[in-house]
Amino acid sequence: MNGAQALITTLVDAGVEVCFTNPGTSEMHFVAALDDVPQMRAILGLFEGVVTAAADGYARIAGKPAATLLHLGPGLGNGLANLHNARRANTPIVNIVGDHATFHKQYDAPLESDIDAIAGSVSGWVHRSMTPDDVATDAARAVVAATELPGRVATLILPADVCWLESPGPVEPLPAMEPTTLGSDIEAAVVEALRSGEKTMLLLGGGALREDGLRAAYRIAEATGASVMSETFPARLERGAGLPSIDRLAYLAEFAQMQLDGVKHLLLVGAAAPVSFFAYPDKASVLTPDGCQIHDLTNGGVDPAAALLSVADHLGASTDIAVAAAHRPDVPTGALTSETLAAAVAALMPENVIVVDESNTSGLFLHGATAGCPRHDWLTLTGGAIGIGLPLATGAAVAAPDRTVLCIESDGSAMYTLQALWTQVREQLDVVTIICNNSSYAVLNMELARVGADRVGPVAKSMLDISNPDLDFVALANGMGVAATRATTADELVEQLRTAFATPGPVLIEAIVPPLSL
Amino acid sequence: MNGAQALITTLVDAGVEVCFTNPGTSEMHFVAALDDVPQMRAILGLFEGVVTAAADGYARIAGKPAATLLHLGPGLGNGLANLHNARRANTPIVNIVGDHATFHKQYDAPLESDIDAIAGSVSGWVHRSMTPDDVATDAARAVVAATELPGRVATLILPADVCWLESPGPVEPLPAMEPTTLGSDIEAAVVEALRSGEKTMLLLGGGALREDGLRAAYRIAEATGASVMSETFPARLERGAGLPSIDRLAYLAEFAQMQLDGVKHLLLVGAAAPVSFFAYPDKASVLTPDGCQIHDLTNGGVDPAAALLSVADHLGASTDIAVAAAHRPDVPTGALTSETLAAAVAALMPENVIVVDESNTSGLFLHGATAGCPRHDWLTLTGGAIGIGLPLATGAAVAAPDRTVLCIESDGSAMYTLQALWTQVREQLDVVTIICNNSSYAVLNMELARVGADRVGPVAKSMLDISNPDLDFVALANGMGVAATRATTADELVEQLRTAFATPGPVLIEAIVPPLSL
Repeated sequence: MNGAQALITTLVDAGVEVCFTNPGTSEMHFVAALDDVPQMRAILGLFEGVVTAAADGYARIAGKPAATLLHLGPGLGNGLANLHNARRANTPIVNIVGDHATFHKQYDAPLESDIDAIAGSVSGWVHRSMTPDDVATDAARAVVAATELPGRVATLILPADVCWLESPGPVEPLPAMEPTTLGSDIEAAVVEALRSGEKTMLLLGGGALREDGLRAAYRIAEATGASVMSETFPARLERGAGLPSIDRLAYLAEFAQMQLDGVKHLLLVGAAAPVSFFAYPDKASVLTPDGCQIHDLTNGGVDPAAALLSVADHLGASTDIAVAAAHRPDVPTGALTSETLAAAVAALMPENVIVVDESNTSGLFLHGATAGCPRHDWLTLTGGAIGIGLPLATGAAVAAPDRTVLCIESDGSAMYTLQALWTQVREQLDVVTIICNNSSYAVLNMELARVGADRVGPVAKSMLDISNPDLDFVALANGMGVAATRATTADELVEQLRTAFATPGPVLIEAIVPPLSL
Repeated sequence: MNGAQALITTLVDAGVEVCFTNPGTSEMHFVAALDDVPQMRAILGLFEGVVTAAADGYARIAGKPAATLLHLGPGLGNGLANLHNARRANTPIVNIVGDHATFHKQYDAPLESDIDAIAGSVSGWVHRSMTPDDVATDAARAVVAATELPGRVATLILPADVCWLESPGPVEPLPAMEPTTLGSDIEAAVVEALRSGEKTMLLLGGGALREDGLRAAYRIAEATGASVMSETFPARLERGAGLPSIDRLAYLAEFAQMQLDGVKHLLLVGAAAPVSFFAYPDKASVLTPDGCQIHDLTNGGVDPAAALLSVADHLGASTDIAVAAAHRPDVPTGALTSETLAAAVAALMPENVIVVDESNTSGLFLHGATAGCPRHDWLTLTGGAIGIGLPLATGAAVAAPDRTVLCIESDGSAMYTLQALWTQVREQLDVVTIICNNSSYAVLNMELARVGADRVGPVAKSMLDISNPDLDFVALANGMGVAATRATTADELVEQLRTAFATPGPVLIEAIVPPLSL
């Protein structure tokens, strides 16, 4: 058994059963070994940005990591932006980067580069396997590192000869790191804040946004009068009828400051302290009010839902909480706008759908319209690196073959990783994609005004305008084997969505939606 | 005048007149300033891998750097693979990476990452501008760093507030670094080797592959009996009828070893010592024979052509050298194969064309077939990171509006940076693209055998097969506004190539070429 066979077997035994990949020559022994370990499902992407976001989407839904297999520094580079997003989502990924054989590295062959430095920028754990004697143990350690709360990208750099040389074989999985429990000091401080009568907010993120965490948070809120808010861009938010309905902290700093106005105690549960997404001249970076006390309940590997449950029980809070009532808007008719787009989605989206939302400005009304829809998951762009949506949906669909994935995607962002459509066809995934085509980087038109650029000339405007030439997403989808239609009215979108949800395999709808006037 | 205006004005004054970009919020003041400095031409790419390869292609043809403008760490990540290729090409690029405002960086906002570490992996010079007082000087220094021989990626990290704050204005260009002249010791050693009667080879790369360098190298060769060889993947090779005809060192290590067999003195002129592209079990990494003495003539900033000219004159070598005779193959007919593809290109390619070659296995016969064609430039994938061709052609066309660019591109590689087609339409560039569609990563089928993977099963094979689903490059091109046709016979290719060369603006031909049996 060679190193590659030992590595893959170890991963499978540790529960890592899917490998998203775009391999090259230095990974060929790994690829050859895939036939020896059929429990590992290998899924090809035509570009590494697809591979890494698919691994992210898979783990967000499966609750356990996939592996990637990337080709040296350039393959890692191509996947870097979506690994950045995965880092911000705290997604566990076993990120395997092939490298030159150990004896070959010294010669600075054309593909040689500083993989360790590049990987360090997105990984919570980086290790280079140096011999086939160690590679199985290294793989087991990578799984533990990836899954330790809150989750991280664990990068294993894999020289070619470590794969092809004889190895001692696989190793048993290593025990997962146990979550830390909430310390009694912090719990006492939190309970004191909640009982202070001062304005207190629970800001939830990560695992706190699943059903258990949400229910516990709303028990606390209803018992104490605290408010509850989701981080702006949740990795996975469980929502819909029957679950507590949570608002998200606004992307725009001005609005977020209004939401946080007067808060004296901010309790972070799986979320980071709120700061402005970007800096702007004469605007604040820190969004909490002066004098606001911040308590981080989940620092140091505390499980968010467990922390909330502990506090709720400490308070003796009732489990009888308000939840969202079932409600869908009427099926819309007339012009296709951001509002009617949201209504169409909310009117029609199926039970238990997974929504992948990279709709940016076009999706402004989606969250509100769908609050009372049947239960669903909502996945967002966590790290601001656009181009996550289509491959994130791809990975989510691999993790949940029995569920429909609805990807609502902006035109500009779609063009980053459009190759994901091809993998959706190849794997026959039930993904319905709506491309919101407004022919512009609309969010930047808004940002250009917000940053205080006083005179905006034609060159600047042209840099945000992608209508010259117009993109034809129906043709682009067809070019990768995806059935596609174009909707220019709400009625067309409704009809096409009905068809899409009834059709197995991937379907794409190009929705011509005018830019929002903000 | 703010920092962005001072920066752009300084770049323009230093000869940097084109900025390839995909900007975001942190770059909005730079974008706004583009209207104030109309001498800077801003060209939008839909993906940063397009931006960076276009800057590479521009500089290879223009002989001076373009600027990029990228959006923080993720934008740099998306452009990293083609910056890796640019690094291996020694291409001068002023690589500008926007970052959060200096005061905002501490807050770890979602897009924060270690830009310096990522940039270091591809750059010969990295600097972070910290105030608008320094940014113009920093820009002038970046241009000098980029253009110092042999050329490099110079990364200037640009915080948003350095752009938007008031600055003291632009600065004059700094003097370029003078090339070093060939030292008399090394020249004497080289002349001694050339006169030794022992087998001696000149291995040319970089600037040695332009007309002056080639002519000087062949003067030396004809005067001494030395052989001349090009590095395997030249950034820009001038060739065709009337120029000396140079062979390239083979990609396959086995063949390269045959070419280098018996060489006692290897003279490197703008090239690196030859090593195997990848490592293979039981095969050599170093390709020069045991005991071969290597002399590097261009170490330390020596101009390759000047070094060759100095040696040639030292030898008193005649300027009367053999050059390639004008010759084109007959227009092919019948089946479309790698051979007839090469013949069609060679029969029809126009005078002074710029060939961008990322055809990998499908292009095996191109170099031979075109040796006697009218004079042209040949640009290749220098760093092994596939996905360079379409955007490299885009940048080359921007640099040479009076020349036709012919991009011969593999299907798998094309899918990495297909978005370049959109920029070709937007800028109305005369680029003819041939996609060699063989529905596979054919080079990896060959490599899978070469690495010694003994049993190749169906999973491994499927990872190299991109026929499920088939890619339709005509539809994909149409989706980005590029006129496209499909050729399934040599006759169709000939007819479509004739039309394409006669058509202004970008045109794409999908050539259905069966995989080469190697």
